[in-house]
Amino acid sequence: MKLQIAVDITDTARILEIAKGIYDIIDIFEIGTPAIIKEGLSPVRKLKEKYPDLCVLADSKIVDGGKIEAQNICESGADIMTVLAFADNTTIAEVVETAHAYGRKVLADLICIKNIRGRSAELIDLGIDYIGVHTGVDMQKSGRTPIGDLHELLASVPRNMVAVAGGIGIKTLHSYVIQKPEIIIAGSALYSAPDIRTAVLNMKEAMK
Amino acid sequence: MKLQIAVDITDTARILEIAKGIYDIIDIFEIGTPAIIKEGLSPVRKLKEKYPDLCVLADSKIVDGGKIEAQNICESGADIMTVLAFADNTTIAEVVETAHAYGRKVLADLICIKNIRGRSAELIDLGIDYIGVHTGVDMQKSGRTPIGDLHELLASVPRNMVAVAGGIGIKTLHSYVIQKPEIIIAGSALYSAPDIRTAVLNMKEAMK
Repeated sequence: MKLQIAVDITDTARILEIAKGIYDIIDIFEIGTPAIIKEGLSPVRKLKEKYPDLCVLADSKIVDGGKIEAQNICESGADIMTVLAFADNTTIAEVVETAHAYGRKVLADLICIKNIRGRSAELIDLGIDYIGVHTGVDMQKSGRTPIGDLHELLASVPRNMVAVAGGIGIKTLHSYVIQKPEIIIAGSALYSAPDIRTAVLNMKEAMK
Repeated sequence: MKLQIAVDITDTARILEIAKGIYDIIDIFEIGTPAIIKEGLSPVRKLKEKYPDLCVLADSKIVDGGKIEAQNICESGADIMTVLAFADNTTIAEVVETAHAYGRKVLADLICIKNIRGRSAELIDLGIDYIGVHTGVDMQKSGRTPIGDLHELLASVPRNMVAVAGGIGIKTLHSYVIQKPEIIIAGSALYSAPDIRTAVLNMKEAMK
């Protein structure tokens, strides 16, 4: 199992400061969508320049223009990019083809997808590398969690393709760990912690 | 009817050059998603600094984090932002609430939505300003156009809320104009034209 920190902060200096503290212990460092919409791919580029061995995911949420978007993201140095699972199959196929030509990987984000089993089967046919269930930050406000969706996804696709995101913290981590997804994504529980490095180490320990 | 140019170019200098040639005749100037993913909101900011009276749309395609994304976009100066119609209602409500607090508008992009009538009714209840049918660039490759979707949308919501996008050029413009949507969006037919100003003037003339 891998731990991914989703850094939903838009300040590039702060993103780099966070990376400095955990680059040697975090499995995947995610530049969140808020940073990309505000700053573009510049934080990804700066992060890869400074830490070339760090696995960086750009939460690009591509939904159209698959080839051009994937090309730009690959050229920024990102190791993994995200595409929305509800995008048209043509778009997903273009993102996968382009990313793979650069030796990069693609995670399909199932946010707002109802038919997890059906869509996941199609995503596998399209050559996607990872599939993630995702309860958005706005959906979390009504108490929703991705636990049920994770269960359904794990029943549908190989374990080593599965990612889960949506308000996961140290207190709720166990219920995800026992299901053994490939990637567990934590956001503010990590980046808003008073000591981010300790928070990451504690989660990594709980995932053993 | 308004004409919107969708500038799917990622080079900010080129975007500003295009704006210089047409800022006084184009109704809405769209900074496309490729520019936002690559450069962030900086092209929007630069455009509004230079042309404060130009109506600028940021094709942000928000799907989560409605409040923070909308805030960042409003602070960049954009007059209109886009949210994906596929997003959760909570997200759409947050985008609308935040944008309206700043006196800005929100266009919901129906890309990949099958149930146009049903979803549009919900979007109106959520307070959205514009609803756009949109055949993505990747979908256009198989010959798809937004003409049927436009017909369906116009049968479902008030005419002055309706936008249409998807490969529209001077040759196909008439079939959209006769349906009288509020906003007609043209992309490469305008920004790739040898003389962009003339191309815009020709389309405006054909929309009279």
